[in-house]
Amino acid sequence: MTSNAITAPKGFLAAGVHCGIKESGKLDLGLIVCPKGATAAAVFTTNKIVSAAVDVSKKHVKSRKIYAVVVNSGNANACTGKKGINDAITMCAGTASLLTQARDTRLLRFARNDKADGRRPTHYAPRNVLVASTGIIGHQLPMEKIKAGIAKAAAKLSDSAQAGLDFTKAIMTTDTRPKQAVRRFTIADCQLKIENRKSKIENRIITIAGTTKGAGMIAPNMATTLCFITTDAAITKPLLAKALKYAIGNSLNKLTVDGHQSTNDTAIILASGLAGNRPIVSQCPPYKKFAGALADLCDDLARQMALDAEGATRMFKVVVKGASTKADAAKAARAIANFPLVKCAVHGGDPNWGRIICAAGSAGVKLNVNKLSCKLDAITVFRNGAAAKFDRESAGKVVLQTEHTMTVDLGAGSASDFCYGCDLSAGYVRINAEYHT
Amino acid sequence: MTSNAITAPKGFLAAGVHCGIKESGKLDLGLIVCPKGATAAAVFTTNKIVSAAVDVSKKHVKSRKIYAVVVNSGNANACTGKKGINDAITMCAGTASLLTQARDTRLLRFARNDKADGRRPTHYAPRNVLVASTGIIGHQLPMEKIKAGIAKAAAKLSDSAQAGLDFTKAIMTTDTRPKQAVRRFTIADCQLKIENRKSKIENRIITIAGTTKGAGMIAPNMATTLCFITTDAAITKPLLAKALKYAIGNSLNKLTVDGHQSTNDTAIILASGLAGNRPIVSQCPPYKKFAGALADLCDDLARQMALDAEGATRMFKVVVKGASTKADAAKAARAIANFPLVKCAVHGGDPNWGRIICAAGSAGVKLNVNKLSCKLDAITVFRNGAAAKFDRESAGKVVLQTEHTMTVDLGAGSASDFCYGCDLSAGYVRINAEYHT
Repeated sequence: MTSNAITAPKGFLAAGVHCGIKESGKLDLGLIVCPKGATAAAVFTTNKIVSAAVDVSKKHVKSRKIYAVVVNSGNANACTGKKGINDAITMCAGTASLLTQARDTRLLRFARNDKADGRRPTHYAPRNVLVASTGIIGHQLPMEKIKAGIAKAAAKLSDSAQAGLDFTKAIMTTDTRPKQAVRRFTIADCQLKIENRKSKIENRIITIAGTTKGAGMIAPNMATTLCFITTDAAITKPLLAKALKYAIGNSLNKLTVDGHQSTNDTAIILASGLAGNRPIVSQCPPYKKFAGALADLCDDLARQMALDAEGATRMFKVVVKGASTKADAAKAARAIANFPLVKCAVHGGDPNWGRIICAAGSAGVKLNVNKLSCKLDAITVFRNGAAAKFDRESAGKVVLQTEHTMTVDLGAGSASDFCYGCDLSAGYVRINAEYHT
Repeated sequence: MTSNAITAPKGFLAAGVHCGIKESGKLDLGLIVCPKGATAAAVFTTNKIVSAAVDVSKKHVKSRKIYAVVVNSGNANACTGKKGINDAITMCAGTASLLTQARDTRLLRFARNDKADGRRPTHYAPRNVLVASTGIIGHQLPMEKIKAGIAKAAAKLSDSAQAGLDFTKAIMTTDTRPKQAVRRFTIADCQLKIENRKSKIENRIITIAGTTKGAGMIAPNMATTLCFITTDAAITKPLLAKALKYAIGNSLNKLTVDGHQSTNDTAIILASGLAGNRPIVSQCPPYKKFAGALADLCDDLARQMALDAEGATRMFKVVVKGASTKADAAKAARAIANFPLVKCAVHGGDPNWGRIICAAGSAGVKLNVNKLSCKLDAITVFRNGAAAKFDRESAGKVVLQTEHTMTVDLGAGSASDFCYGCDLSAGYVRINAEYHT
């Protein structure tokens, strides 16, 4: 089976270890390293209270090259004041220092055959490392454990699929399963400079791989959760950022589990440039292919997150069309996906269109009551402002699927948007009432 | 014990019967009658999809006098098209017709000793009757059952406390207990015209009584649920409307159970004017006393609703201060009260301030991270942007109370507002996943 780990694209090493933050003994510290340096882009939470890691990574991501990402789970390092900021910087510095020490080891030279080997730096600086944290808010990080953990992870770095999976496991909190996805595609007609000889046309395979953690505190239109994406495409920083923003905006940002974003949401993409393609520098067809594949990968991750949301047993997509503006469509879709009674009805397998219509009506968007319609997959349950006749048993089966689509036509225009949601179960309450500070 | 039923103020009769909408055999049709006619005011849902009853009552409440309110539970008569509207009008017409037929019976003459007896009309028109419905959306009302139910209720009309309680029971849906409240106060220095003799100063006792139903689909800043208030105060329609708007705005509209208002929310106040006070025609001290008592009564009802919310085991008040605007304070308070993770933490008795701070941060309001503070009752758990040292056991006990207050200081100004919320339990999910269309 082809690897779907973040180590799948060329140029990336990863590791996941247990350093002692999680009392369960599960993996809680992960490392991604790109020895040759990666072009990086990121999106962050728009919560006004941000974790120290977000604060630090926002600055570091401006660096020309990123060589590593260090992540811990089990502790959010949020609301931890100046000490929290210093700790986040120390995590970057510790990682950079270990990489500098190890620069001549086999691992960090793993891509030695690549002609670009000369690009490997002699010194890794803290600002070339990104950091992310997830877990409980308001507790200081156990820095001795983390420093030892970084060393342990650095020693375990590998480009194997298992190493990528270990990283994924190390970022999990209440997730019940790791979430990974990969996309491979060919950029056709790409001009390659082969040493100093004349350019020639050749196809190159590009790989993009991603992983996310996240099961609660997830809401769209803000940011995401923790999400790490690697690719071997060569692409400029502005275009990488543009493609990431587009992809996250149409995937993770469309997902709502409980209507709230966390203080730590971060999505990072690293591009090693080792696929050999001529760097993507404009919105040419290769860019569109790259952006499309990235969006598709993020959509895959968003669905995996919805299905593994805290207590979730199934997910759904809310499509709102006939809106007077796209913002209205997004607002209505989100209101429906967040409405606890809709989420409970999905949990109970009930085609309860009344709750969907009620949520649309209270979303504060323009709608034409006499044209309002609603479908559950292909079954029309409400048409032009009144209940439609439909087979209740078939509609119940639609709702009981692992995933179904509720389509609401507001009858007020031609704009549309969508949102992903999941059911609300007693399991969600159990997880979140029992999880103690 | 003094009655706290809606029949407590002078001039009101009530009844509650089972007409056959609820399969359980529980009461499902209620009637309030004010034979002499009441000055009325109402607030309605701001959901753009409104029930037929809301549509009809919005018009009828403009009438100079209201003689009756007819209410059914078990069926919302929402999303029922033109037939629904006709059915709501038929409910008013049926009630008016029965009152006209019964106008010379003992009951409708019950206040005969009152000198204002001559005001009793010879004919009751449909527009002098208000209607409200609550229950499932999208089903047509069983009109034959309802017509028979109105006749049955009319025959049972009484000014007893039991009749008021029957009415309250008839409007319940998933409520586990009836919600009633009463306030009595004296209007001092009120000039009374006694027949045609000279005016003299005398005190008059005013009674206000109210009842609500409601356990889910409740959100503030929109409208309420079903709420019926009676008073014997004499007061003009504009001042009655003003006092109701103020009272609901600071009580029921501050309550959020699941962040959504229903299609049927309605709060109605009827003033019989039989207390004998000189009519309140301006914002004089008597008006202020009346408005204050009404607000206090509505606050009482809101708390009863919070504690009886679907699956709720306890309630909480969120006070947000230090906001740059009152709107920001209200928005933040509501975001905190609606955040499922906060609700789950309250359910679990966990002083999880991290979730409160996180909700405040994602509310989209102005805040000063370095001045942000949070208290649970009197215990400071977060001060100036960092975790405070506090006794975890004491804080846990605060959260486990039937009601506690979370105070968040945004550190961004001097405006404040509040919101009521309740915990989220597996019971909520059970009720709403099992309730089938």
